[in-house]
Amino acid sequence: MSKKSVQIVEVGLRDGLQNEKATVSVPERIELAKRLAEAGSKRMELGAFVRADWVPQMAGSKEVIDGVFALVRGKSMPSKIEFSALVPNERGLEMALETGIKEIAVFGAASETFSKKNINCTIEESFEKFAAVIKVAKKKKIKVRGYLSCCFGCPFEGDIDEKKVVELTKRLIKMGCYEVSIGDTIGIAHPGQVKSLFAKLKRAVPVKKLAGHFHDTRGTALVNILTAYEMGVRVFDSSLGGLGGCPYAPGSAGNVATEEVVFMFEGMGVSTGLDLELLIEANHWMSGVMKKELTSRLSKAGLPVAGPV
Amino acid sequence: MSKKSVQIVEVGLRDGLQNEKATVSVPERIELAKRLAEAGSKRMELGAFVRADWVPQMAGSKEVIDGVFALVRGKSMPSKIEFSALVPNERGLEMALETGIKEIAVFGAASETFSKKNINCTIEESFEKFAAVIKVAKKKKIKVRGYLSCCFGCPFEGDIDEKKVVELTKRLIKMGCYEVSIGDTIGIAHPGQVKSLFAKLKRAVPVKKLAGHFHDTRGTALVNILTAYEMGVRVFDSSLGGLGGCPYAPGSAGNVATEEVVFMFEGMGVSTGLDLELLIEANHWMSGVMKKELTSRLSKAGLPVAGPV
Repeated sequence: MSKKSVQIVEVGLRDGLQNEKATVSVPERIELAKRLAEAGSKRMELGAFVRADWVPQMAGSKEVIDGVFALVRGKSMPSKIEFSALVPNERGLEMALETGIKEIAVFGAASETFSKKNINCTIEESFEKFAAVIKVAKKKKIKVRGYLSCCFGCPFEGDIDEKKVVELTKRLIKMGCYEVSIGDTIGIAHPGQVKSLFAKLKRAVPVKKLAGHFHDTRGTALVNILTAYEMGVRVFDSSLGGLGGCPYAPGSAGNVATEEVVFMFEGMGVSTGLDLELLIEANHWMSGVMKKELTSRLSKAGLPVAGPV
Repeated sequence: MSKKSVQIVEVGLRDGLQNEKATVSVPERIELAKRLAEAGSKRMELGAFVRADWVPQMAGSKEVIDGVFALVRGKSMPSKIEFSALVPNERGLEMALETGIKEIAVFGAASETFSKKNINCTIEESFEKFAAVIKVAKKKKIKVRGYLSCCFGCPFEGDIDEKKVVELTKRLIKMGCYEVSIGDTIGIAHPGQVKSLFAKLKRAVPVKKLAGHFHDTRGTALVNILTAYEMGVRVFDSSLGGLGGCPYAPGSAGNVATEEVVFMFEGMGVSTGLDLELLIEANHWMSGVMKKELTSRLSKAGLPVAGPV
């Protein structure tokens, strides 16, 4: 019997940090990547090539990637990690290519209003940009991952039609994305919805091309991940300590915490390849950097240790 | 097709408050019960007849119950709510009986060391006390609920033998408990463990006599509740806002938040009989009483509302 396993895509350095108020310095972001690698992270998004005046938290993404690659070359970091960066358009792709990164991600939305407000264009316009980006990326043998946000609801439109999500996911895969990350961007999904949507997605695309991207805004991230796992999904995005937040619910929790996903899966006998103790150490180090406790409950409580307290 | 439903046992006024540093006044506790009743709570634990010098937070439990019963008599609260109180021994039972309450709960542990440290006697001694309590309660036609704590692990002993949990659960039911609440007292359980233990429990006792009592110390309460639900469990303990904490992991989250359990189940089409908006209102009122934000992520983020933010 082959051991059950899942892949965890660490998005703390991108989706996490871009939703934090504080801007974290380049050396600190490189150190975070190093600590995540030491904890066993195999897939890591390092930053985004977006306009620094719009998203100041992502400024210096090139320097972060350069620094991480220097560590890899110096053998201070394992070389078998898949690093990626988010790119919104061809200009972003050019900048990403300069770093020598082998994977990029494009970010779309299943909600028209969210698309306009978040990435400043219609869904159709965004897909035209993706097509241009993917075309160049393919030529350069760069893997492309797709994000589809607001798959379970939109802060502006409310409910989102499942058919729309399925259609856009199919389209992203057809365009050349090797994987599409199905996002509960505002942490609104419940297990019934997860089951229903993934059932439809699985009929349209191979389940191994799907990832689950859940936010813990309302405490339901883990329960949604488990439900998606039971539907056959084996790739999940998470953010160390739950770094990040929700611009639509200020002060709320953001991405699901990597260590809680690992705690759940490892407890169930599903291998993640990650070391919980090192993740919790990285969390505590990062709390120092951020000058605040991160939201992860697990890191706050610590691993269960039998003994006098 | 009959509608799927679960019963939620509100334990905020007992398990929640007894693990808070602040002592909440009797009128405020009565007001909390009233607000929970208005939100649709059908089962509510109102307090504990324990030594006030040991558990000062539970002092005045008689006055809380008297106050709540006065509201019921005055028709300011629905009469169809099942109220209960925790009693550790015959003296506690006598005090509970004076209030006219129709249900009590006894509290045992599946860990010998926890039993000694928490309730100051061996498991065997505690069961002798329960037998005496249950004997009197039966005569007075008082329903008895059993709590079994540390079913998934103990802060002192670490792992707990599932057989021990099954044996003690059987014994509590045989002694006359109409229901046994299987407790993850230190918030250590993961879904694999929940599945495994409830599979064994179901072979030993009718599943309808089992309740799930999960703490969110490590963020896994909802995922464990969903797993227990899938195993057939239909009764869950929770605490408004996640009131409470964990004496073995200071500063950590305590009982699972009632509103998050309701959000999950209602989203799945499983009826809880509770009104989410009123629960969130009650949470915000209680945050004022406690002079701090309660831990529930849902109440912090609020219900999803589509519209401009």
